[in-house]
Amino acid sequence: MTKLTEIAGSIVAPRGFRASGVFCDIKRLGTGKGSEKGHKRDLALIMSDVPAAVAGTFTTNQTCAAPVKVCLERVGRGRAQAIVANSGNANACTGKQGLKDALEMARFTERALSLPAGLALVGSTGRIGLTLPMDNVRSGIIEAAVELGNTPGHARQAMEAIMTSDTRPKELAVEFKLGGQSARLGGICKGAGMIQPGMSLTGKRPAAAPLHATMLCFITTDAAIEAKALRAALEQAVANSFNRISVDGDMSTNDTVLVLANGLSGPKSEIRNPESREFGVFQGALSYMCLELAKMIVRDGEGVSRFVTVRVKGAKSFAQADAAARAVANSALVKTSWHGGDPNWGRIIAALGSSPAVIVEPKVDIGYSAPGSRQVLWSLKRGQPTRAAFPELCAAVAPNEFDLHIRLNVGRAEALFYAADLTEAYVQFNKGDVSDPASLGG
Amino acid sequence: MTKLTEIAGSIVAPRGFRASGVFCDIKRLGTGKGSEKGHKRDLALIMSDVPAAVAGTFTTNQTCAAPVKVCLERVGRGRAQAIVANSGNANACTGKQGLKDALEMARFTERALSLPAGLALVGSTGRIGLTLPMDNVRSGIIEAAVELGNTPGHARQAMEAIMTSDTRPKELAVEFKLGGQSARLGGICKGAGMIQPGMSLTGKRPAAAPLHATMLCFITTDAAIEAKALRAALEQAVANSFNRISVDGDMSTNDTVLVLANGLSGPKSEIRNPESREFGVFQGALSYMCLELAKMIVRDGEGVSRFVTVRVKGAKSFAQADAAARAVANSALVKTSWHGGDPNWGRIIAALGSSPAVIVEPKVDIGYSAPGSRQVLWSLKRGQPTRAAFPELCAAVAPNEFDLHIRLNVGRAEALFYAADLTEAYVQFNKGDVSDPASLGG
Repeated sequence: MTKLTEIAGSIVAPRGFRASGVFCDIKRLGTGKGSEKGHKRDLALIMSDVPAAVAGTFTTNQTCAAPVKVCLERVGRGRAQAIVANSGNANACTGKQGLKDALEMARFTERALSLPAGLALVGSTGRIGLTLPMDNVRSGIIEAAVELGNTPGHARQAMEAIMTSDTRPKELAVEFKLGGQSARLGGICKGAGMIQPGMSLTGKRPAAAPLHATMLCFITTDAAIEAKALRAALEQAVANSFNRISVDGDMSTNDTVLVLANGLSGPKSEIRNPESREFGVFQGALSYMCLELAKMIVRDGEGVSRFVTVRVKGAKSFAQADAAARAVANSALVKTSWHGGDPNWGRIIAALGSSPAVIVEPKVDIGYSAPGSRQVLWSLKRGQPTRAAFPELCAAVAPNEFDLHIRLNVGRAEALFYAADLTEAYVQFNKGDVSDPASLGG
Repeated sequence: MTKLTEIAGSIVAPRGFRASGVFCDIKRLGTGKGSEKGHKRDLALIMSDVPAAVAGTFTTNQTCAAPVKVCLERVGRGRAQAIVANSGNANACTGKQGLKDALEMARFTERALSLPAGLALVGSTGRIGLTLPMDNVRSGIIEAAVELGNTPGHARQAMEAIMTSDTRPKELAVEFKLGGQSARLGGICKGAGMIQPGMSLTGKRPAAAPLHATMLCFITTDAAIEAKALRAALEQAVANSFNRISVDGDMSTNDTVLVLANGLSGPKSEIRNPESREFGVFQGALSYMCLELAKMIVRDGEGVSRFVTVRVKGAKSFAQADAAARAVANSALVKTSWHGGDPNWGRIIAALGSSPAVIVEPKVDIGYSAPGSRQVLWSLKRGQPTRAAFPELCAAVAPNEFDLHIRLNVGRAEALFYAADLTEAYVQFNKGDVSDPASLGG
C-alpha cells in the first residue's frame, strides 16, 4: 500500500499547476456575464507550467461527444499542457459544427495561454444536442486565462465550473513518497446523473466491457512518468473505480478522465517500467484518487439517499461477478427497496437470476454489513432465509451507507460495485419542467 | 388477418370452461376468511370440462419459482384440465418446501375436482421468499371448486384473484371462424411490476433472448389444436407480445403464460400442421389476444402515466433492433423525460449509443406520432435536429400514449417494443413501508 497524506488544493496541489473557473453564460441565460453576477461558474481552465505526459479514458458510447473525439485524437500524442472544460452544454450530437467548436475551444485556449498547437484538451458536460455559444466560450477562456492561480480557491473555482446537478464539490489531493522525493496528485470530478461509465483508453469497447455518466474527472500530478506507463496506470485505476459505479445505469456521451503528469516533483527520472517499485507506488496513489472520487460521484448522485457497496464473491469468472453485481445495482426494484430501507432479498435474488451470471439458487448467500466490516448479518444462506429477524435486517439497511454481500458459491471470482438507491427525488429532478427548457437536464 | 369479434366472458367465453375466484387469506392478514369479508380474492381456479391440449411459456430467470418448475414438467406432457393460481405469495426462493407446496397445490386441486393425476397446473404471484400457508390454500381450493361457474362474473372473480398491484382487471375474449366453425379464445392476465418478461417454452434462455415481470396470463380456447402446434403458436405469439414489454426492466421469477385448448368448438379435426390455413387463423387470434393483454400490462404498470410504443427500423439485425429498443425503453433518463413530457432526443441517442446495436450518429432519425399513425414529427434527421419547434415536440409527447420512431438507417431489420415512463409513484409504491411488512411488494 502506498502511504498517502491528504493535503489541500486538489488539482493545484501538485507543483507547477494553476487553475481557474469563470462564468461565461454557456446556458445563454442572457443575464449578463462575469462570475461577480452570482451565477454558477461554467468554464474551467487547468494549466501546467510545462508540457506534461497525458493519459485519458473516454466513454465507449457510440454517440460520443465532440470534445471526446478531440481528446481521443490529441491524447494519443502523449503530451498536453492545458485542459479547458465547460458545463451547461455537452456539445454532444452536434455534428460537424460541434467538432469544429470543440477544436476551436482547444485552439483558442492554446492561443490565450501562448501554448504550442495541440497541447490543450477539452471537456464538456450538460444538455445534449445544442451547439456551443462560441462567443461566450471565447470570452470565458480569455477571462479564465487571466484568472489562473495556484491557491486552493482557484482549484475550487475550476471545480465549481464543471458542476451540473452536483450538490457538492468533489476534490482531493494527496502527497506520497516516490523514489525518495515527495510527489503529489490532485483531482476534481463531477457526476450526478447519466452515471454508469464504461470507459476505455481508446473509446472502443473492450470485449468484456462494462455496459453502461456524464462524469468528468481531471487529475494532475507532479510525478515524473512516461505517457505509456501513465496510460497503463490510468486504465487500471479507472477499471476499479469509475467503471465500477452506477447511479442510474445510463452511460453518457461525454465521460472523460484526463491525467496530466508534469514531472516537476524533482529531478528523478521518469517512471517507465510497470514492473518497477515506483510504478507500483504511483499506481497505488492514482487508484486511491480515482476510487475516492468515484465514490463521491455515487454519494452525490441525483436524488441519492443511500450508497451501497455490492460485494459479489464466488462467481465463475470476473465477467460473471461483474454482471451479477450490475444486475443488482441497476434493478429498479432493488434500488427502490434500498430507498425504502427494505431488506428485500427476494428482489436481489430475482435480479441475480435474470443476469447472465450462473446462479444456483440453493447456493446463494445474501447479507449486510457496515461499510468495510466483516461482521455480516446474513439474510439468506444457501438459498434459505436465516433466522435473522426482520427488524434486525431493517436496521442493517437503515444507514446511509452499507455493504451488500452476495456469495454465489459456484466459483472463485469476485467483483465490487458501487451503487445508489432510486428515489422520488431522482424522478422529480429528471422529469424536468418543459415550461422552462433551460431547466432541463442532460 | 384473422377476423375477430370481441365478446364478453374472457376465459369462460370458450365452450366448456368454468372459473372462480375466492379469498383464502394467503397473505395471512388474519382477518377471517371468505370473500364476503370484503377482502380482495386471492385464489383463482380455471377448469375445462374435458382434458385439453396445453402449452406454456415460462420465465428464463435462473431463480424461477416452484410453480414454474411444476408447470415446466407437467406442460411437457401436452395435456391439462385445470389451473389453480394464487396472489399474495410468489412461492419463489422457497426451496424444497416450496416445490412440495406447489405440487400439493396441483394435486389437491385434482382431488377437489376429481381429475386424473397430473392434469392441474399452478401459478403464483406475490412476495418472494415466503412459504405458502397451505391450510389456507387447501380450504381456498375447496371453496373455489364449489364456486366454479361460466358467467362473465365467474371469470371476473378469477381475474381479481390473480391481481396484485394491478389497478384494473385485464381480460379479453374473441370469436372467430375456424374451419367453418365458430371458435373462441379468452384470456386474463396480471402484471404491474417486475415486468420485462423473457419467456421460453422450456424456461431455458435462447441464444438471443430478451434479457429481462411477474406477469401471469391464462388463456382458454375451444379450438381443436394438437399440443405441439399449440406450443408453436404460443411461442410465436409470446415472442411478439409479452416478451416485448417492459415496465421497469426487472425480470420476475414467476412469469407464466398457459393456454388450454379443449377442442369443444365443434367436431372439426385437430390443427396439426403449422403450414395449414387453420393454423394461420388460430395463430392470428392467439397473437392478437397476447398482444392486447401485454399492452394492458404496460398501461397498468406500477405508477405508469405514459405508454410508449418504440418502433426501431433500419437496424443491422433483429437482435440489434431489439437491443436498441430495449436500451431506450429501460433508460431511467429516457423514462423520466417521458414522465415529464420532455421530447429529449439527447437522452434517446445516448441510450442508443450505449446499446450493443450498431449506431452511426449522423444516420439516426428520431420522431413521434400518434399511436399507429404514419404522420411522424421528426425531431432528429440524420443526426441533426430538425426545425420542429420545441412546443410542437412537447405536444407530440404530451398524450398518455404515443409512438417513438427510431430509424438507425444502417440495415433493414426492425423491432417493436412497448414501454412505460418512470414516475415518482413507481418509486413510492416500491419503496414500500417497512413498518408494515404486509404492505411490501414482490
